[in-house]
Amino acid sequence: MGRGRGLGPGVLCGPEEGQVWPGTRPAGWEPIAGKSRLARAPPTPSPGGGPWAGAGPRPRAGQGGSMLNRVRSAVAHLVSSGGAPPPRPKSPDLPNTASAPPAAAPEAPRSPPGKAGSGSAAPARAVEARASFSRPTFLQLSPGGLRRADDHAGRAVQSPPDTGRRLPWSTGYAEVINAGKSRHNEDQACCEVVYVEGRRSVAGVPREPSRGQGLCFYYWGLFDGHAGGGAAEMASRLLHRHIREQLKDLVEILQDPSPPPLCLPSTPRTPGSADPSHLLGPQSCWSSQKEVTHESLVVGAIENAFQLMDEQMARERRGHQVEGGCCALVVVYLLGKVYVANAGDSRAIIVRNGEIIPMSREFTPETERQRLQLLGFLKPELLGSEFTHLEFPRRVLPKELGQRTLYRDQNMTGWAYKKIELEDLRFPLVCGEGKKARVMATIGVTRGLGDHNLKVCNSTLPIKPFLSCFPEVRVYDLTQYEHCPDDVLVLGTDGLWDVTTDCEVAATVDRVLSAYEPNDHSRYTALAQALVLGARGTPRDRGWRLPNNKLGSGDDISVFIIPLGGPGSYS
Amino acid sequence: MGRGRGLGPGVLCGPEEGQVWPGTRPAGWEPIAGKSRLARAPPTPSPGGGPWAGAGPRPRAGQGGSMLNRVRSAVAHLVSSGGAPPPRPKSPDLPNTASAPPAAAPEAPRSPPGKAGSGSAAPARAVEARASFSRPTFLQLSPGGLRRADDHAGRAVQSPPDTGRRLPWSTGYAEVINAGKSRHNEDQACCEVVYVEGRRSVAGVPREPSRGQGLCFYYWGLFDGHAGGGAAEMASRLLHRHIREQLKDLVEILQDPSPPPLCLPSTPRTPGSADPSHLLGPQSCWSSQKEVTHESLVVGAIENAFQLMDEQMARERRGHQVEGGCCALVVVYLLGKVYVANAGDSRAIIVRNGEIIPMSREFTPETERQRLQLLGFLKPELLGSEFTHLEFPRRVLPKELGQRTLYRDQNMTGWAYKKIELEDLRFPLVCGEGKKARVMATIGVTRGLGDHNLKVCNSTLPIKPFLSCFPEVRVYDLTQYEHCPDDVLVLGTDGLWDVTTDCEVAATVDRVLSAYEPNDHSRYTALAQALVLGARGTPRDRGWRLPNNKLGSGDDISVFIIPLGGPGSYS
Repeated sequence: MGRGRGLGPGVLCGPEEGQVWPGTRPAGWEPIAGKSRLARAPPTPSPGGGPWAGAGPRPRAGQGGSMLNRVRSAVAHLVSSGGAPPPRPKSPDLPNTASAPPAAAPEAPRSPPGKAGSGSAAPARAVEARASFSRPTFLQLSPGGLRRADDHAGRAVQSPPDTGRRLPWSTGYAEVINAGKSRHNEDQACCEVVYVEGRRSVAGVPREPSRGQGLCFYYWGLFDGHAGGGAAEMASRLLHRHIREQLKDLVEILQDPSPPPLCLPSTPRTPGSADPSHLLGPQSCWSSQKEVTHESLVVGAIENAFQLMDEQMARERRGHQVEGGCCALVVVYLLGKVYVANAGDSRAIIVRNGEIIPMSREFTPETERQRLQLLGFLKPELLGSEFTHLEFPRRVLPKELGQRTLYRDQNMTGWAYKKIELEDLRFPLVCGEGKKARVMATIGVTRGLGDHNLKVCNSTLPIKPFLSCFPEVRVYDLTQYEHCPDDVLVLGTDGLWDVTTDCEVAATVDRVLSAYEPNDHSRYTALAQALVLGARGTPRDRGWRLPNNKLGSGDDISVFIIPLGGPGSYS
Repeated sequence: MGRGRGLGPGVLCGPEEGQVWPGTRPAGWEPIAGKSRLARAPPTPSPGGGPWAGAGPRPRAGQGGSMLNRVRSAVAHLVSSGGAPPPRPKSPDLPNTASAPPAAAPEAPRSPPGKAGSGSAAPARAVEARASFSRPTFLQLSPGGLRRADDHAGRAVQSPPDTGRRLPWSTGYAEVINAGKSRHNEDQACCEVVYVEGRRSVAGVPREPSRGQGLCFYYWGLFDGHAGGGAAEMASRLLHRHIREQLKDLVEILQDPSPPPLCLPSTPRTPGSADPSHLLGPQSCWSSQKEVTHESLVVGAIENAFQLMDEQMARERRGHQVEGGCCALVVVYLLGKVYVANAGDSRAIIVRNGEIIPMSREFTPETERQRLQLLGFLKPELLGSEFTHLEFPRRVLPKELGQRTLYRDQNMTGWAYKKIELEDLRFPLVCGEGKKARVMATIGVTRGLGDHNLKVCNSTLPIKPFLSCFPEVRVYDLTQYEHCPDDVLVLGTDGLWDVTTDCEVAATVDRVLSAYEPNDHSRYTALAQALVLGARGTPRDRGWRLPNNKLGSGDDISVFIIPLGGPGSYS
């Protein structure tokens, strides 16, 4: 996802929609369709200046000179080393999975030392020095492939190679870079099988076969970055590990059919006390207690993992240049249930027997208006003297003082008139409509990870307090319905959904899958490619055009197709 | 609705569910089914004391000695005057509608002086001195009828008389008093046709026939009081007038098919400037402005009317003894659309061709947990040192310090474990499940009017900041569907819904209406009576029992049946 330009101190800047990096767009094309989550700011530089103040035209969206230098150095290194990255020591907590680059060198998720999970991802391809230039490891891109994937003019659709190891469940995946709105593809993706070893188990000596053993979860994540690719890349490498950490405490509990204990002993049990009956079960508590389901424990684990991921970004943003922020759409399959966690404006739908089942909703200044306004109302200091928590249908003009304008307060869904007072001349906390809606005139999504440095244009007001890192988690019980190979869960970043309706996606699902044998593993990748191509369009009439001649999406587009009843052996 | 007993200073107290006022329940009966929205408090009186501190056993729910004295004096007055109330001077803003008793003597809704609307309600029956003993005027109860309606032992179902003027749209209505949980029926109801004269029109000289004329709206309201009947009674007499006041500005705008102007002149127009084209229309504004619909203006008017009603209760609570609070469920029919506004735990459903269409949702500590927790998190001073904003499945015990317990924070829908710290021993802001859920261990609804004096048991902490007076408004376009005489909108207080499912209501709708001719005006009242009787049950086996032998509702029960395609001539 792209971002605005000319933002205030500390705000990362780059070309706005309709602008391109030099040399990335065929001459004579008109501005591409697409949007930026960060707003245009006034062209005057901020007085105070930021890291790049006074540095002339800013080199690229979301990344200042230091990032440019890092990219240059990385490219130089790649050239000098023939493309092979230098070996890097494995982090104790990061064995057997794709390694992280220095730009996102992760602090291990907070957990006691111990054997960490192993993924089934493609062989680790360290991209040590590529920084935000990296693509998902399962694409297995060579340096040449990486350059092609990074080409705004060609916008070649990328998918995992036919010849490589298939993604779990024969998941399909495809992506394409934007048409020039940001230097690199700021979407990131991850697909892993993650093993969770119980923190409390007696390693190697399970007392009962059904307990003390670990759990596996399947994991898919799409991360749509803005104001730089760092947050998305970091999340794509680490969020599933935070989820694993959160689940470690629950390994035995989730495998025990009895209700979760409301209280646990303070310290990990010793071998002699490993029997879960030592836990303080519901029977030992009051009769007036809430029932807590296993499912809600997994939901809580995912929610807290998002928060811990966000906190890690906050801690490491200076040392590791975690620029910008990202939307996160994550799927966890565990013990028969699919958990879809969404924070941002990506979207997940299930297409089952032609029927569309929404599995997420978008979090934008419009959908979260009342939450944002309530926060501004309760904590007016967050608005400075520049913003008002009231909403107006348009900016109120000084000459209208004393007249009456339509407004909405935080408790209202309807509109009413009020007399215009001096404070109403401030900029509204939430303004604009649809894809142009903004919080504090700056950002167009209200949930996600990162953005700890994000400031209001030409101001030192932080925007982060209004952004929530918490996802909404929806649960789908895979065992409640017999799925056929054409039933799929579709995940897409907003590059897909900006130009494609749910119904169009369902029609494409039907059209593409019916052209393949049900047991053809490549059908899901073909479907992902068809969706990405359908949203991108083809270069024609000075733009990327859809068959109906409307503009295609100029944004990064990424799609996962997760078969729910296909050839994957997940049951 | 009933209330708890022994609440702290300023909290109004009475018998809890399962208790009765002396002489109101047949001997030997077991506690009735029903619930109280206010929790039981410890039996020890609060040290500080309130208006009734140290006064011995408290005389009645929600009302202290002064209220008892007022009731006594009112009854004495009724007896001495033969039931005819003394004439009272009409408020300038309250002509031609039922007058308000001193207990709720209203300040006129804030509006410029002028001709006010007139209702089509039954002839005004001033109940000047009855205070909370009053019933809706459209029941046309004689003093003897009022006594029968107030009889907890008989629990006779009340409906408007067959012989009187029908309610608008041939609306059906029935109610029954509780089984003893509070001294009087604390539900109130209102049904009116309200005329709105535009504030800006040139009185008597409309320039265009289609403009400058007033509007009519049909109005139904159910008000379920708690901790005293004053708030419910005041709301039943005044809320529709607040709505009328809010609509006065909109009379011309709502009748003009063009989009509402975003700005209005500051002062009411003079005759020469009455043409709406003088308003600053959308054309004169930026192109980037939100579309505001006529519908959303009506929604905003209703929302603000609720707030102004609540503010009026706050202002007048001392002078006029507006005790307690109330849930409010209100229906406005205006220009082809039905607006259902709900603040509390009453419920509205449409039964259309047998299909159930929910038109409201309940606002309780469970459904509003995250809003409440967020407020406690952002404003910890509202919690004092007694409460924590975290939720636990049960109260944490001091001996569990250092262990780990399940909890939910304001951003979570799932549960997770945390180490128990000293602060977690505080009482959770939200606790309990279902009908037993409470805010600050005190109140079981989270939206409504009044409750400005409500304090936490044995504490001076106010609860009002956590309660919202704003309704959720749902809109149903009556013109989008051809309704038959059996299609109805059902409004009920929780006395109905506690023991009756939506499906059972729909079945009763079908059963009762099919037994009457479609053009029989009495069928909707018969349906309301059947629903109330079905929820109340019959006295048997030491309680009010349903046919399945379960306990019926011991709460006040009130039901409106609004025909959507019946004999009413509302089109």
